Amino acid sequence: MLVGLGPGSHAHLSARARAAIAEADTVIGYVTYIRLVADLLEGKEVIRKSMTEELDRAVEAFERARQGKRVALISSGDAGVYGMAGPTFEVLFQAGWTPESDIEVEIIPGASAINTCAALVGAPLTHDFCAISLSDLLTPWPVIARRLEAVAFSDFVVALYNPKSGRRTRQIVEARRLFLRHRSPDTPVAIVKSAYRPKQRIEFTTLEKMTECDIGMLSTVLIGNSSTFIRHGLMVTPRGYANKYDVDSGTAHEGEKPGRSLSSGLTGWLAGIHASGLGAAELARIHRLPEDYIAALLAEPLESPEPLSEAAGEEAGA
Amino acid sequence: MLVGLGPGSHAHLSARARAAIAEADTVIGYVTYIRLVADLLEGKEVIRKSMTEELDRAVEAFERARQGKRVALISSGDAGVYGMAGPTFEVLFQAGWTPESDIEVEIIPGASAINTCAALVGAPLTHDFCAISLSDLLTPWPVIARRLEAVAFSDFVVALYNPKSGRRTRQIVEARRLFLRHRSPDTPVAIVKSAYRPKQRIEFTTLEKMTECDIGMLSTVLIGNSSTFIRHGLMVTPRGYANKYDVDSGTAHEGEKPGRSLSSGLTGWLAGIHASGLGAAELARIHRLPEDYIAALLAEPLESPEPLSEAAGEEAGA
Repeated sequence: MLVGLGPGSHAHLSARARAAIAEADTVIGYVTYIRLVADLLEGKEVIRKSMTEELDRAVEAFERARQGKRVALISSGDAGVYGMAGPTFEVLFQAGWTPESDIEVEIIPGASAINTCAALVGAPLTHDFCAISLSDLLTPWPVIARRLEAVAFSDFVVALYNPKSGRRTRQIVEARRLFLRHRSPDTPVAIVKSAYRPKQRIEFTTLEKMTECDIGMLSTVLIGNSSTFIRHGLMVTPRGYANKYDVDSGTAHEGEKPGRSLSSGLTGWLAGIHASGLGAAELARIHRLPEDYIAALLAEPLESPEPLSEAAGEEAGA
Repeated sequence: MLVGLGPGSHAHLSARARAAIAEADTVIGYVTYIRLVADLLEGKEVIRKSMTEELDRAVEAFERARQGKRVALISSGDAGVYGMAGPTFEVLFQAGWTPESDIEVEIIPGASAINTCAALVGAPLTHDFCAISLSDLLTPWPVIARRLEAVAFSDFVVALYNPKSGRRTRQIVEARRLFLRHRSPDTPVAIVKSAYRPKQRIEFTTLEKMTECDIGMLSTVLIGNSSTFIRHGLMVTPRGYANKYDVDSGTAHEGEKPGRSLSSGLTGWLAGIHASGLGAAELARIHRLPEDYIAALLAEPLESPEPLSEAAGEEAGA
């Protein structure tokens, strides 16, 4: 059982995560995670591992499981997010394990750091977001830099995992530099340390100033998108209602309909680029999209708009 | 209380989410979410809203709270991820609410669809990932397309939320087209419908074939990165141990050290580009990074490597 503990406080454990620990003969995890659930471990074999021993944890879990033991391999957050689920399957496959064997694997999801940190600072994840680990212990720097650059350009809300350690101090400086190529220095940033744990600490800052803050191995750095704002100590990314509605009256802007795509949605936008009379290069520049993509769209006949049916009109985020 | 239910099954509710519903006088949510927790609602005022009435839900919650009622506004997954937390703060701010007022707001995080779907298919989120909603009801298509293009290029694992509805059928076709500009047609894709609910359905496919699959409003589409594989019906993204270790023997490759950055990590890579004798344009092409970024790095003096201290050596994902 690969158990995601969520932030670590018992209140935020799922019923299934708690039950999995209760059912386990053996509980394996990084020392800090073991400490988070110490009071649930009475009478169990407990194997504490250091942070670098991820593959060892998976190997020990597999050995115990082969002896017929029920094993809980615990991770903070979600067991799948930079967690033990991946390394465990790599070790199992290596050993010739298949899902048809006697050893069953269950992954128990939990709220990841991006979700728990977001819940503490407001509502920063109301629009598209991504997670990037700044650790270069297993990932070449150009891969990380390419991702930072791409999501800074395309205006994602970004959570930086493993932003800094005693030895790795420059990665966050480089992340800031890549972001500043595309984002305003005033972009809101929240730094959350030890979310939902006794030493929890939340700091609001900006993209420009974030490297001056206290950031460590237990911190998650949340960088807003271009419409994220901080008000009354809360970081909020708007969902985009203002694109469609007058915020005071609640009525839709001219040309917009509740439950329907925006006039600048795919269908309306396609009609617009066809009607514009502009070439692919010019449209690519205006919309900051690849010229070959625009050219391919212009080369296709424009579909006639779908017939309007009220029955099909209801949709999330309308 | 903005409550994230997780996937919706009671086993995956957090203790705090369950307690919040128990404490509430009034529970407000989309009809489908209300149904998920129907047996926890006895004796409570229940307000069922349709999918398009997100702002109404927030307004009703605020009105009830002003009457002194404890209100639980429920969302499936995480309340912050394309959920009710954002719209609620927008409505509260609009009404002049501040955190110092008598009405307290608590956000209760939950496992989002990306996490729960990932747990069901294996371990696809072991490396950097992002979430993109394909709904253009509030977001202009060029914004969505720009994000798809950026993350396809920079090799993220991607979860597509709201991939398709009765009316919106072409967005997923366009997503595939943008991805195929950078990713192999064989890239593994998993389509998960109604995760952890009675009608759960999982389908594995490829980027090329994904548009032929059954995809709807209750589906999440998970697209792997360039090293994601499917084996024995499990979708796994490697963490990158093979970059550092010989997988059979577990010994580090020549020039690599456990607990230290890769030789192609930031410090090693910086030394390499300085030593290469190549210009910024050529290096930018090789590493697929912006030329001005490389030029800025080359213009700075190379820092001498940090002194090696065993004490500082331990780090996650080593």
